Amino acid sequence: MPVGTRGAVKGVTADALESLGASIMLANTYHLHLRPGDDLIARAGGLNRFIGWPRPILTDSGGYQVFSLANRRTLSEGGVVFRSHLDGAKHELTPESAVDVQTRLAPDVAMMLDECPSWPAPADAVEAAMTRTLRWARRGRDRFLAVAAGAAPEVMRPNPGQVQFGIVQGGTFPDLRARSVEGTLEVGFDAYAIGGLSVGEPVDVMYGIVDETARQLPADRPRYLMGTGTPDDLVESIARGIDLFDCVLPTRNARNGQLFTAEGPINIKNARYAHDERPIEAGCRCPTCQRHSRAYLRYLFQAGEMTAATLNTLHNLHFYLDTMRRIRDAIEFGTFDEWKRGFLSAYSRRPAAAGDTR
Amino acid sequence: MPVGTRGAVKGVTADALESLGASIMLANTYHLHLRPGDDLIARAGGLNRFIGWPRPILTDSGGYQVFSLANRRTLSEGGVVFRSHLDGAKHELTPESAVDVQTRLAPDVAMMLDECPSWPAPADAVEAAMTRTLRWARRGRDRFLAVAAGAAPEVMRPNPGQVQFGIVQGGTFPDLRARSVEGTLEVGFDAYAIGGLSVGEPVDVMYGIVDETARQLPADRPRYLMGTGTPDDLVESIARGIDLFDCVLPTRNARNGQLFTAEGPINIKNARYAHDERPIEAGCRCPTCQRHSRAYLRYLFQAGEMTAATLNTLHNLHFYLDTMRRIRDAIEFGTFDEWKRGFLSAYSRRPAAAGDTR
Repeated sequence: MPVGTRGAVKGVTADALESLGASIMLANTYHLHLRPGDDLIARAGGLNRFIGWPRPILTDSGGYQVFSLANRRTLSEGGVVFRSHLDGAKHELTPESAVDVQTRLAPDVAMMLDECPSWPAPADAVEAAMTRTLRWARRGRDRFLAVAAGAAPEVMRPNPGQVQFGIVQGGTFPDLRARSVEGTLEVGFDAYAIGGLSVGEPVDVMYGIVDETARQLPADRPRYLMGTGTPDDLVESIARGIDLFDCVLPTRNARNGQLFTAEGPINIKNARYAHDERPIEAGCRCPTCQRHSRAYLRYLFQAGEMTAATLNTLHNLHFYLDTMRRIRDAIEFGTFDEWKRGFLSAYSRRPAAAGDTR
Repeated sequence: MPVGTRGAVKGVTADALESLGASIMLANTYHLHLRPGDDLIARAGGLNRFIGWPRPILTDSGGYQVFSLANRRTLSEGGVVFRSHLDGAKHELTPESAVDVQTRLAPDVAMMLDECPSWPAPADAVEAAMTRTLRWARRGRDRFLAVAAGAAPEVMRPNPGQVQFGIVQGGTFPDLRARSVEGTLEVGFDAYAIGGLSVGEPVDVMYGIVDETARQLPADRPRYLMGTGTPDDLVESIARGIDLFDCVLPTRNARNGQLFTAEGPINIKNARYAHDERPIEAGCRCPTCQRHSRAYLRYLFQAGEMTAATLNTLHNLHFYLDTMRRIRDAIEFGTFDEWKRGFLSAYSRRPAAAGDTR
């Protein structure tokens, strides 16, 4: 899922996103709640209509941004009180209000409110956050079902088909993860996500937790790994059962000049590209590589032209979406293991060092 | 001609520009000379190849930007010495070097170097600039023909089909304009532009000068009015014989939230659009109006999302290009006068005041 934090994927239009083949996007409840407000969006008929994007949308619960962006947070069993980073206004987010806000925003998929502890954290803190998340899961699900049953006519509900995903917490502790899975399944959601990873833990630890957790989640529902990751993280996680991802890497890194290729990322700012008339990646069918050279992209970036962000974003999103398409094909043909070995042997995590030939 | 100052029209890709139907774009010699340098562009095969734009390009001479952007200019009969606004480096622009730089940049149309006095200026200053411009016209044309004849093998020349336009000066003085036309025609260029207008003079004065000057220029060549203008300026100037325009208004104003419609510009920042679910303009076939509401565009602008600039720019460029298409059709059908009356009676120059119904 490309990330459209404020209802737009930075640097690209909805038109372009459709042309790239994105089948679903993510938008952030926290940002949209504060501006333009879920009320305005509900009255416009929900997010799809408001932002002009006809394909599925998933919104997060807003919790993660409250903890990373908002001012003066007070967390309690009831929920979290915070002040807007925009104007300092006081807001409260509870398991119930997260449902109501997303009911008004009206994406196809709403996420329950969870508590995601920072990493590293001691086991007792992670356990406390996990058990609270389970209590919030129950409250969030109850509210979702009540709203769906018509018990809250005051909440505008432009999308009656909305579903709700639960979130598994438990940090890097397998036993806590297992208890979280058990409790979340007991509450019962339309599908399940793994939260609290990609927050700084070593990549092998993450893969281990994904491996153990994904196999405990229903295989007939999408399994969503939140906030991940690099292209090789996606491949490794899919091998462990994950179906759905969101990540700002392809878009944010594009704006910083990092471009993904099958051999790993390159940094377009590098002086060695000043005269390089090749496309970012030979054979790439993205709109940028069809038309523009590394030399031009480097120049546009150095000149601070906003078109640089757009062209870089188009390439990176194409790379991610195309990689996912290739993986789906490989799975369909029963050749995923082989495909994965080939991909990982070509892909290098670090930008190439100066002087190499890439 | 949409303006792609630094080799990219701000906020839109070359792909999008082609889809909008732009048949030619303008790029700025001053900016490209300083960065990435005309040498680099020549080695990449010229501007078309470097920026990935296969349709015609026109470059200005660089003179206008030297006077509006560069530091510590010293103007003499030889040319103008200035310091780059980027790094303070000393450069010289002469009628000959303007030709050489544009030979390397390799657009389809190169402009001669002229001297454009500020407005208002006394008649003797305007006359001095006009007569110098005539001497520069001769030097620029001589250099252009020499380079074309192979007399300067040291100047890379990726586009042997390049043509050169002359520029008429003379401010708002009809007699000076007439002398400038006569002298410039005597030098003899592939086509002719009217410079030194749209610099602050009243619009009726501009129309008067355009009227008198255009009729003295060959009707079988494009007549180019430089740096103009608003949609009604275009219509009025076409009625007076102009064929070609460049202007930053559609793109720059888009980035500031001013959107053009058949009834005049609107300011999308206005609070009255917060809940307005209509497109910018009913019936508009631009990609933005096909998909997005005023409410969404206002919100994106207020949120500072770069996609706002892109969507606004797509609309404004479509409006300009579509207006030009309609004019060409009307001329073809012999109905331009009627079309013009209809257009001007609907079009209002000022953004609508608060409280009106637009």
